[in-house]
Parts: sequence; C-alpha cells; structure tokens
Amino acid sequence: MPVYKAPTADTLFILNDVLGLERYGNLPGFADASPDMIEAIVGEASKLAETTLFPLNLSGDQEGCTRHDDGTVSVPKGFKQAYDQYCQGGWIGLAVPKEFGGQGLPYTLHAAVGEYMSSSNMSLMMYPGLTQGAIAAILVHGSDEQKATYLPKMVEGTWSGTMNLTEPHCGTDLGLLRTKAVPQGDGSYKISGQKIFISAGEHGMTDNIIHLVLARIEGAPEGTKGISLFIVPKFTVGEDGALGARNGVTCGALEEKMGIHGNSTCVMNYDDATGYLIGAENKGLSAMFVMMNEARLGVGLQGLSIAETAYQNAVAYANERIQGRSLSGAKAPDKKADPIIVHPDIRRTLMTIRSFNEAGRAFLLWTALKSDIAHRSPDEAERQNADDLLGLATPILKGVLTDKGFDHAVMAQQVFGGHGYIEEHGMSQYVRDARITMIYEGANGIQALDLVGRKLALNGGRAVMAMFKEIGDFCEENRADETMAPYTKALKKGLNDLQASTMWFMQNAMAKPDNAGAGSTDYMHLFGLVTLGYMWAKMAKAAQGKLASGDAREEYLKTKLTTARFYMEKIMPETTLRKVRIEAGADSVMELAAEAF
Amino acid sequence: MPVYKAPTADTLFILNDVLGLERYGNLPGFADASPDMIEAIVGEASKLAETTLFPLNLSGDQEGCTRHDDGTVSVPKGFKQAYDQYCQGGWIGLAVPKEFGGQGLPYTLHAAVGEYMSSSNMSLMMYPGLTQGAIAAILVHGSDEQKATYLPKMVEGTWSGTMNLTEPHCGTDLGLLRTKAVPQGDGSYKISGQKIFISAGEHGMTDNIIHLVLARIEGAPEGTKGISLFIVPKFTVGEDGALGARNGVTCGALEEKMGIHGNSTCVMNYDDATGYLIGAENKGLSAMFVMMNEARLGVGLQGLSIAETAYQNAVAYANERIQGRSLSGAKAPDKKADPIIVHPDIRRTLMTIRSFNEAGRAFLLWTALKSDIAHRSPDEAERQNADDLLGLATPILKGVLTDKGFDHAVMAQQVFGGHGYIEEHGMSQYVRDARITMIYEGANGIQALDLVGRKLALNGGRAVMAMFKEIGDFCEENRADETMAPYTKALKKGLNDLQASTMWFMQNAMAKPDNAGAGSTDYMHLFGLVTLGYMWAKMAKAAQGKLASGDAREEYLKTKLTTARFYMEKIMPETTLRKVRIEAGADSVMELAAEAF
Repeated sequence: MPVYKAPTADTLFILNDVLGLERYGNLPGFADASPDMIEAIVGEASKLAETTLFPLNLSGDQEGCTRHDDGTVSVPKGFKQAYDQYCQGGWIGLAVPKEFGGQGLPYTLHAAVGEYMSSSNMSLMMYPGLTQGAIAAILVHGSDEQKATYLPKMVEGTWSGTMNLTEPHCGTDLGLLRTKAVPQGDGSYKISGQKIFISAGEHGMTDNIIHLVLARIEGAPEGTKGISLFIVPKFTVGEDGALGARNGVTCGALEEKMGIHGNSTCVMNYDDATGYLIGAENKGLSAMFVMMNEARLGVGLQGLSIAETAYQNAVAYANERIQGRSLSGAKAPDKKADPIIVHPDIRRTLMTIRSFNEAGRAFLLWTALKSDIAHRSPDEAERQNADDLLGLATPILKGVLTDKGFDHAVMAQQVFGGHGYIEEHGMSQYVRDARITMIYEGANGIQALDLVGRKLALNGGRAVMAMFKEIGDFCEENRADETMAPYTKALKKGLNDLQASTMWFMQNAMAKPDNAGAGSTDYMHLFGLVTLGYMWAKMAKAAQGKLASGDAREEYLKTKLTTARFYMEKIMPETTLRKVRIEAGADSVMELAAEAF
Repeated sequence: MPVYKAPTADTLFILNDVLGLERYGNLPGFADASPDMIEAIVGEASKLAETTLFPLNLSGDQEGCTRHDDGTVSVPKGFKQAYDQYCQGGWIGLAVPKEFGGQGLPYTLHAAVGEYMSSSNMSLMMYPGLTQGAIAAILVHGSDEQKATYLPKMVEGTWSGTMNLTEPHCGTDLGLLRTKAVPQGDGSYKISGQKIFISAGEHGMTDNIIHLVLARIEGAPEGTKGISLFIVPKFTVGEDGALGARNGVTCGALEEKMGIHGNSTCVMNYDDATGYLIGAENKGLSAMFVMMNEARLGVGLQGLSIAETAYQNAVAYANERIQGRSLSGAKAPDKKADPIIVHPDIRRTLMTIRSFNEAGRAFLLWTALKSDIAHRSPDEAERQNADDLLGLATPILKGVLTDKGFDHAVMAQQVFGGHGYIEEHGMSQYVRDARITMIYEGANGIQALDLVGRKLALNGGRAVMAMFKEIGDFCEENRADETMAPYTKALKKGLNDLQASTMWFMQNAMAKPDNAGAGSTDYMHLFGLVTLGYMWAKMAKAAQGKLASGDAREEYLKTKLTTARFYMEKIMPETTLRKVRIEAGADSVMELAAEAF
C-alpha cells in the first residue's frame, strides 16, 4: 500500500527558521499568519491530504475519467466528495483577498500546503488548481463587475475554471491560433474554434465551469498582437448571478494520456459560444500570462510534490524489503537478509532525492515569499526587487523542479526493482504523472528560453544581478564562519560557474543567438543547481544556529547538515559540467542539415 | 503515425568499416558472413522489422494480453502470425550451431538484426528473446539428450523458453529462494513454488513452453550454494519427442505493468510439476548465469533499440511540426512558422540522442564480436582477452544503454510537447517500455555492483587493464594524426578520469567497501562515457579514412564526424563530474540512521 505523510516539520523549519516569516508582519495578511496559526493551518492541510486526498490517488489513476455520449464527463469515485471537502476547508481562497471570499493569508502559506495536496493527489488537485489560475487572471485583469460575478463562486469552489490556449496546430507559438471571436454589438462575443489538452475542461463536480479562452477578434492583426482573452462560462450567468442557458462549449473527447488519469483532459469545441472580453482587446497574451506565471509556480510545485511522495514510498520499501547483506557486515543478523537501505547505492538514490526535495521545498517557499513581497510590500524598491527575483525564479522553478522531480520519481521507482514496474505499488503512477509537469504550462525547453532569452537581459540584467548579489552577500557574510565553510565554499564555486556562463552568453550570444539557444537548458539547470545550493546553505546556517541554541529538534537538525553536505559534495559539482557544455557553444549542435537527422 | 526505418547503413558502416568483420574469416561461421551476405541478411531483417513487426507495436500496447479463466493467455492480435514469420525466417537460430538447426552465423550479426527487431516491437520480440536465452543455457549445460530433445524445436520456434528466477520475496538475492525440488528416484524431480515476473510465461503461440526454473533440492544447503536449475516443460515430452500430459505449471495471474503490455508477464505456479535437472546439482546459479549474461546483452540492446525508434519519431515530428521562428532568421518564410528542428534546444536534444545511439550501436556490436571471439577463436590468448572484455562490457552495456536509452526516450517524447503525452503518437509507449530495461535481468544498481565489486578485481584486474590498454593504444597510435586530435584529446581526458577513479577505488574501497558501493553507479556511467567515446573515436577514424579514399557516402561520413565532435564536446565532459562524485566517497551517503530517512 502506498504511503504519504505531509512533511510538516520541514515546512515549519523553512517558514519559521530559514525564511523567518514573522519578520514580514508588515505585509497585509502576514500579521494573521503567526507561527501558531501557521502550524495549525499546516496541520489541517496535512490531515486533509493524508486521509482524504491520498487514499483516492491510486484508484483515481486506475479508474480514470469517462466521457459519456451526451458530452458529460465522470470523474473517478470519491473525487467529488473529496473536492467538496477541500472547498469547504476554504483552501482555494487561502491567499485570495477577503473581499472576494478568500482568507487573505500569505501566498507562501498557500504554496506550503499546496505541496501536500499535490503530493497526495495531483490529478484531483488540478481541478481547483486551474480555478486558482483563473482567479488570478480575473483579479488582475477583470472588470469590477466580472470580479463580482465570478470570483466569490470560484473562491468557494462551486464554480471552477480552466485555461484554453492550445489548438491542434499551435501550442508554444500562440501567434498561430485560429479560434475566432465575433463581436455581437452588446459587449459580448461569439467564440468558435477548437482547443485541445484542456485540463479539467469538463466534469460534473461544480455547478459551472468558467473557461478562459484565447481567441482572435475578427479583423484583429495576425500573430500574437491580435490575441484577446475571453471568459466563456459553461452556463451563462444572469445579472442576478443565476445560471442560465448552456453555452456553446462542449467536450468533444477525452485525451488518452500517459498519466494524470484522474483529471479530465479535454478537447473543447467552441461553437458560437458566448464570451466576454477580459482585459484589453488584443492584449490577451499579457492577461493570460498572469495565469500562466501562477500556473508555472504550481507546476514546479507538482514536480516537487510527486518527488516527495515517490521518495517516501521508496524509503518505506527500502526499510521493509530484505535482500542481500550490507558490505560492512550484517545489519539485521536475526533476519535472512538485511533491509536494502543498508546498500550504498540505495542510500545514494535516497539521499539524492532527499537533498533535492528539501532544497526544492525551500526554493518554492522562497519564491512564493518573493511573490507576496512583490504584491503586498508598501516599499516600492522592495517590491521591485522581489518582482525581479520572482520573474527570474519562475522558469527555473518550473523547469528544474519538474525535470528533477520526474528523474527522482524514476529513481524512487528503481528502488522497488521489478515491483516498481507493477501498477499496484503506485510507483509507475508517480512517474507517469510527473512526466506531464515537464511539458505543460510551457515545455521545459521554453522555460529555458524564457530564462536565457528574456529574463537574463530584462532591465539591463537587473534581476540576475540581484540574485548574484543575494547569494554572493550570503557567502561573504559567512566567510569567517568555519562551520559554514563546507557549504559556502561549494556554493561560491557554483556561483562562479554560473557567473562565468552568464558572461559567456553576453559575449557570445549577441552576435550569434544560437549560442544562447544551444546552452539554454544547461543554463537553466546550472541556475537551478546554484539556487538549490543557496537554499542548502541557508538551511545549514539556520540549522547550526538552532543547534547552538539547544533546540529540541537535534536529530532533525543534524540530518539537515548531513543532507546539506551530501548536496554540496555530490550534486553541486554538476555546475562545472553545465558550464563546459554551455561554453562549447552551438557549432556542433547546429552544423547538420535538417535532412541529415 | 509512428515511423521506423532500420538504420542499415549505420550497421553496415560499423560492421564493415569500423569493426572490419571480414578480418575474422578464420572464426567458424564468419566465412559465411561475407559483406554481400551481411548486407542481404541486414536487408531482410529490416524488411521484417519495418513491415511486419512495427505495425503491431502500438496496437499490441493498447490491446495487451489477457488471461482467461482456464489459465490460458491470449496475446495481442497479429502477434502469432508475426511470430511465425520471424521463426520461418530462421531468425531465432541465426547464430546457433547448425547441428541444432541453426545457421551458425556470427552472434555479432544476430545482435545487429536484433536491434531492428526490438526497435520495431520489443514486447513481441521478448517471446523469442527468452527462447534464445534458454537455448544458450541448454547449449552450455544441457546433456546431449536434453540438447537433442529441446534445441531443434526451440530453434525452429515451435517451442519457446522462459527464465524463472524471481519469487515474491526474492529477486536480486536468489539465496533466499524457496521453490523446492523433490527427487523422484527416476532422475526426475517434482517442482513446487511460485515464480513472479515471468516474461512470456504463458501464451498460445507455441506448442510447448520450456521453463528453466531455479529451485532448491530437498535437503540442499541454504543460500546460493543450494540452488539447482531445472527444465520444466509445459507439456511433458515423450522419448519420441511427442508431447504428453500437461505438466503442473500454470499461469496464476498476469502482472499489471507500466509497459511492455504485449508481453505476457506471468505469476507462475509450480505444483508438483515434473522437472529435469540441467547441469550439476546445486550449481544452478552458474548455469543460469549463462542465460543471464546473454539476456543482459539482449536488454542493453533493447535500451538502444527503443532510443533509436524514439529518436526517429522525434526527428520526423521536428521536421513536420511548425512553431516559432529560428533565432537566426526565418528558415521557412513561405510558411507561418519554421519547423521546430530549427530551434537549438531541439537540435541539442536530437544530437544528444543520436550521438548515443550510434555509439551505442557500435558498442553493442563490438561487444558481440568479443563474444564471438571468446567462443569461436582457435587462439587461447585471444579467447581469454575477448572473454575478459566481454565480461567487463556486459554490465556496462546493460546498465548504461538502458539508463541512457530510457532518458533519451524521455527526451524524444519531450520534442512532441503535449502531443508526446498522448498515447496515439507512441512516444509514451517507448518511455513506458524502455523503463523495464533498467530493472529486469538485474536492476542497474546490480550491474554497477557487478562491475565494481566483481569484474574490476577479477584475475587481478586483467580485464580492466586490457580495456585501458586497448583505448590507450588507440590514442597513442593516432597521436600524430592532427585530424584525429578533436576526438583523441577528449577521449584521453576521459580515460584519465576513468583510470583515476579506478585507482581511487583500489586505494579507498578495500578497507571500506561502502566507498565502492556509493560510487558504483557513477563508475558504471563513467566507464560507459569513455567506452562510447572510444567508439566515437574509432568511428571518426574509419569515417576519415573512407572520406580520404573518396568513398561515395560523403554526406553520411561527414555527419559522423560532426556527431563525433558533438559527443566529445557536450557529452564526454561528464566523466569529470562522475570522478568528482566517486572521490567524494561514502561518508555523507551512509551517515544517516535508517530511521532518519
């Protein structure tokens, strides 16, 4: 039987001891988030995740979704009840302003508990997850009327949301999209076209589904400059908020996917569906990007989430399965063999995943805190700095946490040997589910391009300079601290590789952009290695401080230090490989004619 | 629609121009394998693979196998007919001695065409693949009578074979196995117990299934020293070779697996089944290892095979899908966007896979040739050297070609974006199928341990010294050749890292074996990187020679050189990372208490 326990102690250590959340009491909503309150919320979330969501994970994968002849879609057994419980707990609106029915708490806290929810049932959590993205877009770009009409229902979860970008012939290159919008003279539009890969596109868990749809208004320019964003509700909404007629939007088919079987991934057909412009005409992409950026953090979170669940199951199996003897003498002489956790290669596997998960969690919460500061700080300079770092961190978080999250789900599966390949242990599901996170909300190659092609040079490199300064300052501040040397030395070396590669791009990619493209994925991972290394150094610092003060969590804190050392010794050296690859440039990558492949 | 074309030109280049197969005309069977004959056989194999096997791959995955209430198992539609065609072509016995109905041709040729077969339909090819392993075991350890009874039928494919090792509580640690064998006084035994994960364990494609089963004779010692190997036919075989009664072996269930759905992976129940000892009493493991070593090469081949099919499909999609514009200006200005093969990150992906596939193919055939020399050379020293290198290469080939084959199937899937996650394009299947190759026939962690713990020190390190000498000599011989410098320089650097890590193990793992265990997987990959680099250097040498002689394959040969350079610049530098990790030792890996995970 698969297992999952929310890592609440680790979350609290990061929030309280590493990030020092109480120092931000001046930000709106943070005063409500006292350490006691945080602990209570984290505890509630863990209960919901462990006892309600997780038990439906494997069965949801096995049962999947079904489309009926009338176009309705059934979700797996138990999903509706669990979804209702999630809504009743107020989890959708945890960080949404109180005026729209939310609790106005920090987004950082939302991310913290979001990890548990996705760890326990990613497919189920995608339904409210998409709603949260739609809420973010309406909050920023919706009119007051739109906010009043849609947000309270979406925050309470009686209505859900979706994102409709992809069409059969276009995904990354949205400039090619064909879905059209014809103005009706009354402020509304008729939307027609086909969208594919629409997560949570159709289901019966909510009274209404609010589709956010990219389309081109008749006569609008070609390319990305002629794209607008529309609200297309499944049922039209009267002025009194009552549901009206069924709109012209239907689920044409469910996609047969590798994983996330519990989520209904739909082909959506729009046939003169009534839609309402959200934001300005032809500015749909920037409106959608609000949703997209939020979603990208959410997908990075999913990568971490699955790696955590996979890790916990691998640990349980490694402690329980007996096979062979320790190289250094029997560890369980009373049994016929030792548990496989005695074997160094199994340890290497577990430590690799663990060192990623804990740093990934810190990175996620660090980024979420930047988002809170960027949106809530009264100080403009602080807001700008946080927004710069958030923009920089988003593609790294999405790309690295999902690439590595998947790799680590695979590594955890490997611990099970042949039993990992059998569906009943759940390890196959984690791998199949994690695989989509590398693809959706911008495939990871696109994240790497966003980082190298856009975020690096933005505002004269302000964001990347701020990041280098933050990490450099940390190393400098701790230079005299002998006990921090094992961490800061390796971190500094990684930072040097990162800075050298950044410089190499500046010198070699202006004249020849292919040099940036060919090194982009290596650069994203290089940045991720250093950022996670920075998180480890911060965690080591906090752990040492707490240990020195006689904190009761002695074993936990010592484990932190060992894991930090493992990361610095075994994972961090990869920065040099990434640098060497980047500096090898684009020549051998681009030399062949397309026909030669 | 998925595509596959057997890479015959590349196979022939490796066999003729790199390995120089005609130089081995003195070995039995090699005289029959003239260049013309090889080309004809390779051509026949490609036809069978492309037109008969490949069209059943996706449908076989979707349909899967079914166990009926009477214990019989159906395979997917078309499998039986395709299997019959494969048998009629004489492919099972291509390298089996003529006296048992085979063709006695080089095993190297068998491996060459085996790649195509597994590329086109791995699940289907596992049925005869297991038979080939069983044939190998009977050839080496069977009595004359057993050979006469079983081999001809198995070589013609009317009977198939299986390997029965794993039990629910033991896989890697076979010393724990419980299946028992009770002597009947007439030379036969009654076998009872349960075996799991038995590939091709039950099906209706052949008249009989010859199970090779590990069991413990009543009263035999505990552990691995009390294990014997038995032949247990599904139907007993009379002295005249006619089939008799149904034996007490049945399929209790089919496993629900992540992939290879077209292969029937069975729980096999032995209930007083009649079995016959093969090889000596209590020497079953060494008999099984004949089969296992053969199977390990076959699994390494599968890793390469899937990566090749995945690559070809990624290339087709990258040339066809239009999305975005080249960074260096539009390449298809007449279209609304450029094909995605113009993007450097897509190129990086394709070049990475390609550079692995071509070197992997060379490594596979180089290893297969060592096997031929080890078994057929009249010269004892030559046999010993080849056998040493074969033993050394086997875990590397299995571990590296499957780890990387899977990674590359994932990378190829990524080229498809969202479409790669949908089952209809077949990319999901390649990933799901490739995943098992890292697990079965000894999980890759076991391959790494076999390499570090056994093969390295065997005969005073004779094999590893021979390998270092072969690569070192190659670098030395080409030192004066300026045109070879881009390849030999990088190869030499990789070899230095490998030698340094080997030395590190010698100095640090004797006293503390955990240092070997903690670095074993890194070492296996380090060895793989250098070996594939060696293959690239050999291929570059051959390509340059042919180019200088005005060979008609100019474009093909130049593409080889570019790909070789890509490997040296982008892939080879990973050796240093592996070395650094190995030298970091076991301390941070082993420090935590098991409960701390």
